[in-house]
Parts: sequence; C-alpha cells; structure tokens
Amino acid sequence: MNPTACIIVIGNEVLSGRTQDANTVYLARRLGELGIPLREVRIIPDVADTIVATVNELRARYDHVFTTGGIGPTHDDITSECIASAFGVPWEKQPEVWARMEAHYAPGTFNSARQRMATMPRGAVLIDNGHIAPGFSIGNVHVMAGVPSIMRLMFEALAPTLHGGQPVVSRSVHATGIREGDIAAGLTDIQARHADLDLGSYPYFRDGSSGVAIVAKGTDALDAERAIDEVTALFRSLGGDPKPGEPA
Amino acid sequence: MNPTACIIVIGNEVLSGRTQDANTVYLARRLGELGIPLREVRIIPDVADTIVATVNELRARYDHVFTTGGIGPTHDDITSECIASAFGVPWEKQPEVWARMEAHYAPGTFNSARQRMATMPRGAVLIDNGHIAPGFSIGNVHVMAGVPSIMRLMFEALAPTLHGGQPVVSRSVHATGIREGDIAAGLTDIQARHADLDLGSYPYFRDGSSGVAIVAKGTDALDAERAIDEVTALFRSLGGDPKPGEPA
Repeated sequence: MNPTACIIVIGNEVLSGRTQDANTVYLARRLGELGIPLREVRIIPDVADTIVATVNELRARYDHVFTTGGIGPTHDDITSECIASAFGVPWEKQPEVWARMEAHYAPGTFNSARQRMATMPRGAVLIDNGHIAPGFSIGNVHVMAGVPSIMRLMFEALAPTLHGGQPVVSRSVHATGIREGDIAAGLTDIQARHADLDLGSYPYFRDGSSGVAIVAKGTDALDAERAIDEVTALFRSLGGDPKPGEPA
Repeated sequence: MNPTACIIVIGNEVLSGRTQDANTVYLARRLGELGIPLREVRIIPDVADTIVATVNELRARYDHVFTTGGIGPTHDDITSECIASAFGVPWEKQPEVWARMEAHYAPGTFNSARQRMATMPRGAVLIDNGHIAPGFSIGNVHVMAGVPSIMRLMFEALAPTLHGGQPVVSRSVHATGIREGDIAAGLTDIQARHADLDLGSYPYFRDGSSGVAIVAKGTDALDAERAIDEVTALFRSLGGDPKPGEPA
C-alpha cells in the first residue's frame, strides 16, 4: 500500500475568492509521481483553533500532511505557532534561521515581525531551499509557504527525503462525438475488470464539438494500458474515432 | 451575523492533479457578494463513505453546503445517491426530470446510466437552469455539477432563492518597494483598530520589482475605507508611493 497525503491550504484569501489556489494541482501531480497519492484537501481560514484542530485530525489520519500559507511576518501569519500548539511543544527561537536572518537584514530591520519567521516549534526540521525563511517539518507535518514559487522550491527540497511508494501512472484516450451516457455501462464493466485502477470519465467541449476523455490511473502501467485498450474498443463499437491521450 | 457556507468538491480528478478546480474561486466571490461568506472547502474522492460522512459533518456546521461534481451518468458519479444516504431518505425516480429526459433522448437511448441522473433523494428540490439534467437542493445542501460552465448556470439559478446577509466588500491599496516585514507591526495595530475587518497582506512580484498589497474585507464599506486610508499613511511613512487597488 502506498503512503497517503493530505493538504491543508491555510488562508482567508483563498476562501474569499481573492486568490486561486495553485498549490494543490502542483502538489497533487508531484505526490502522485512520488507514490504518495493525495487523498484530501482542506481549505481553512487563518483561525487558530481551526488550524490546530485540523492539523491534529489529519496528521492522525494520513501518512503526510502538507500545509501551505501563513508563515510570513504579518498578523494573519499564524501557522507556525498553531503547529507548535497542535504538537504541544514550545514555539521558540530557531537558532540557525535566527542567525541567518539577523545577518541578512540591515541593522535594525530584523524586527519583531521578522523574528516570528525565525521562531518555530521545538523539534522542527528545516525545509531548506535557499530562501531566507525556510519551511519546516515536524513529525509527519510539512509546513510550507503559500506563494506558489516559494512553495515549489520548498517542496522540491523536501521531496528527496519523503519515503514514497509506487508511482501513480496515467493512460488515457478520448473520442469526439461520444457521449458519457452512451459509454457508461461499458465503462462500469471495464472498471470492474480493473478494480485496482481509478477510471475517470471527463466530458470535454472544444470548438463547438464535444466528446469524452477516459483516464486510467494506478500503479500498474500494463493494467492501465489494457484498460485503455478496452475503452478504445468500446469507443469504436459506438462508431467513435478514438485518439490516444487527452484532448489538446 | 451573516449565514455561512462551505463547499465540498467531489472528484478524484482534482486530487490527482488532472483538473484544476475552478469552482471554488467563482463560488467564493459570488457567496461573498450574497453575504454568505465561505468558511471552508473540502476536496474529497469519489468514495461513498467519505462523501456521506463529510456531508453530514458539514451540513450540521454551516448554514449552506454546496457540492460540486459526481452527478453525471458514469460509475464514478455517486454524489446523488450518497446525499440520499446522508439524509436517510430513499433515492428514487424524480418524475419531472425523468419525463424531461425521456422526451429529450432518442428512443432507446434513455438508458440505465442516464436514468441515474433522473434519480434523486426523496424531497429534493430542483436547481433548474435549463440544462437537461438539473442539480438539486435538499435541506441546506445544494448539489451541483462539476463542469464549471454548468455549475455556474446552476448556481445562478439557485442564488435568488438563498437568504443572504450583508455583502462582503473589499478595499485595497498596494505599494511597490515596500516589504511585508517593514509594515507588519503597523498593520497589526490597524487590524486591532478595525477588529470587524479581515485585513490581508499579500506580497507581489512584477517585472523584477516586488511590493505588498493590503486588502480589507468586511461588511462595513466605510470601515474598510478608513482602514485602507491608515494603511496608505503607513506606506507613505515608510517612503512608499501607494496606489489604490491591487496591482494589475
């Protein structure tokens, strides 16, 4: 069995619709490649009780918890101290980060707001990506920035340390002019014959014509290819002209 | 107090990273305008037990629950029957939708897969948007399609029936060359003086220069304007050249 992951997106800006979350789609793909499939995402506000309760619920349920957002210097950046509360450990000066930031900023500008970014739960292991303020892991919880470019650097610094499983691979086919309702019964049969795969059906609309793409995901590439071969035959049996992959 | 909302995004395709969820940002903005602020989002897989448990947990916690995805005709479309399970009611033929679909499809093609889309929890009220297969509401749970264009039509058909509160309004200002760590203390004071507002701080990067945008959200427009005036003064006190709104 592959290890499992969840993401906690922390930030009022996503819940207000100001910001389109771009981190989930990136992490979902990368975690699939690492064989740590993503099982759940929660988007929650910058509210301490909510953060603490959500972290404690999910770190007990999944092998890895990834948080994004709330580790900057401003009043709404409360993720780090909430993680300390969740683990019941002190939130204290992290000497390495503190020294680095003190050296980086002009004299007098390593102020109390920035010092908060050098304050971490006791026992935190740095996620060190060259950025002045790193993320950190504690237990199975990985705490990262919300800004996508920084989050990605942090995740890629962390990735080699994660113990993954079998990579999730994907095979697909699509056919214009085919409707989901016409293939649903046949698809149910194919899914039943390939129970270890996740067979997804996705209608598409392109330039006034419509069709269906079928995606098989799983850890057995040969099984996925066989299932897609069966879907291809199903499309043909309905007069369709299937093409490999998803529509461009 | 405004009523509250949450969204349950149902679909393996979002968790695998195949699909970027586009419904949350749309619903978040529209719900803010209607005075029904979004408090939480969950993205969950097409797994019956998970859907049932999540719906029952969240419909008790929020005034409105919006689900997206899983109401098509294929084997992975199980939202509708899961909603019936969550409410403990039969999942049965919906006569109006059944008759409409039967008339719409060519003889012999209103097959068992399509008939599932005309099967709903007893007591469901249609969300009727002109689409052949409508969404539905039961209690405080609103069940909508995952395809964004269809979801939007369904939501806009539903919106006039929702009892909203005070619309959430937004005011903002930004300044290039200002860093979050320099304004954090002043911002904390402004937030404390405007406790009913949600004051968000968002660093930005444009064409090699960086800055900070501050967004005040709340139901009192005058209060939001006053807070942004104070932020503007704070930017100026640090030598910044603040501009209204968010960066283009």
